[in-house]
Amino acid sequence: MITFGERFEAACGRARFPLSLGLDPRLDEIPGVIRERALEQSSNREDAIRRSIARFHKVAISAVADFVPAVKLQLGFYEQYGIAGMLALRDTIAAARRADLLVIADGKRNDIPVTAAAYARAYLGQTEAFGERLPAFEADALTVNPYLGRDSLVPFAETAREHGRGLFVLAHTSNPSAPELQDAVMGDVPIYTRVARLTAAIGDEYFPGGGFSSVGAIVGCTFPEAATAVRAALPRAPIVVVGYGAQAGTLAGCIACFTDRGEGALVNSSRTLTYGWTEEPVSEEAVAATIRARTKLVGNEVIGALGDPARAR
Amino acid sequence: MITFGERFEAACGRARFPLSLGLDPRLDEIPGVIRERALEQSSNREDAIRRSIARFHKVAISAVADFVPAVKLQLGFYEQYGIAGMLALRDTIAAARRADLLVIADGKRNDIPVTAAAYARAYLGQTEAFGERLPAFEADALTVNPYLGRDSLVPFAETAREHGRGLFVLAHTSNPSAPELQDAVMGDVPIYTRVARLTAAIGDEYFPGGGFSSVGAIVGCTFPEAATAVRAALPRAPIVVVGYGAQAGTLAGCIACFTDRGEGALVNSSRTLTYGWTEEPVSEEAVAATIRARTKLVGNEVIGALGDPARAR
Repeated sequence: MITFGERFEAACGRARFPLSLGLDPRLDEIPGVIRERALEQSSNREDAIRRSIARFHKVAISAVADFVPAVKLQLGFYEQYGIAGMLALRDTIAAARRADLLVIADGKRNDIPVTAAAYARAYLGQTEAFGERLPAFEADALTVNPYLGRDSLVPFAETAREHGRGLFVLAHTSNPSAPELQDAVMGDVPIYTRVARLTAAIGDEYFPGGGFSSVGAIVGCTFPEAATAVRAALPRAPIVVVGYGAQAGTLAGCIACFTDRGEGALVNSSRTLTYGWTEEPVSEEAVAATIRARTKLVGNEVIGALGDPARAR
Repeated sequence: MITFGERFEAACGRARFPLSLGLDPRLDEIPGVIRERALEQSSNREDAIRRSIARFHKVAISAVADFVPAVKLQLGFYEQYGIAGMLALRDTIAAARRADLLVIADGKRNDIPVTAAAYARAYLGQTEAFGERLPAFEADALTVNPYLGRDSLVPFAETAREHGRGLFVLAHTSNPSAPELQDAVMGDVPIYTRVARLTAAIGDEYFPGGGFSSVGAIVGCTFPEAATAVRAALPRAPIVVVGYGAQAGTLAGCIACFTDRGEGALVNSSRTLTYGWTEEPVSEEAVAATIRARTKLVGNEVIGALGDPARAR
């Protein structure tokens, strides 16, 4: 079976920009033209929520599917809309798969091993019920919190290996309080380095070989020094870079997450690409054109900096 | 508005046993008598999954609602069944609320502040959509992972204060790998003590006053020394004790989570109460009777040890 690491490498190689499109639904930021159409087509409020989100994401995906290799779906923003949100999550995953994009479920899940295995089945595997095994929310990769240690990460690696999926372990997050625990020094290294080493060890154990592993990391570009250390500890890991744009991360922090050959990372951009509509777009085509133009702009920033690392600093 | 801390204290005071009933759906462990009835009543597989879980939990809740003050729902086990599982989650929450039990959503969620706020709305608050504010999954409290630091916990405390809900921060988990990061010494104290102090500080800031705060902790009874330290740092916090029973936690570890007056903690029991049916029960009444008998047994162990702390060791 082709591994997630191999698919990640191939998808990044094909795509024009090393970006992931972040899709974090907030109904009040979805353009009116899409919400109004959803309301007209819906028999109730729940259905209107689901249709608004699913349609907006379908438009955004179509706008950039030939530019970027992946989407990252922030699960909390779907869960806040209850069942309608979870249906929209399923719809969005299906639309991204049809567009041949890698689907990263950003759930930052984890728990003790028996429950971690349930989360792994939910997003990366299949669950048996009444004699059939079926996927629940069929992502290509899931983001995972390392606070519970090695045995909580292993069920994700096992399921990823079995189903050709991947996981991204939170190594260093992008929020201002991230250093509080993550930079705590343990022995002679900060916790985030310890987490990166653990991530590397699990990746090498479950996905040995030369190419990219299927056990990646999430790294905030708001802490460039940590980003550099994490990439050094994880030469074979796919990295999703978070915090660029709305959270004021720097290009230098982004570039630090790529390998020396300028590979192996995707810079996520969510709000910058899909929200902040100061002028209401008049049509779905206008929505798509703006998202496409913004994606080009951010993408060119990143590849410009990658081509000329000095520019990034 | 009455706070979660006040409701927790009152519910524990009324209940016969300081237990929470853990409801972690695994279809293959639900008694056949319940699954078969669900299949008969369902038009499709999804509906049969939802009905099996919802009915089993309704039976379990009815069996112990006059014994225990709370249920704890392990979200990963619902998510593994996709939309059917999320509908069963909603059904189970509704059944527990009707039975006047506190509902603890054990999701171990967290993320950067803007997304943490979305998770808080999803489980503790309300989300606005098309001019209305409605709850998504209406729990009384949510378990939260502290790895992202203070600013990721604050949105939960804010939402909890606004809606009379609570949160339980993972201080020390029950799994064998828990010490790997949680026991790392930072300055002169382990990370778990640092997390407990942070939890206490947020609790005192958002829920000042004399009684129990609405910011609690999750503590594994598999590490009695850590449990003692966490309770010492958190004199006003509700604590949910995990790992008793199937995970071989000790009574001493449980007792360490209570205050000196024997208050303020709930020992969670999941598999021990609801699974391991070596003989297939013949009726729903038989299922209920067994769950009730097991709850009495575990409950009496805990109150016996609380009454005579020496017995616990």
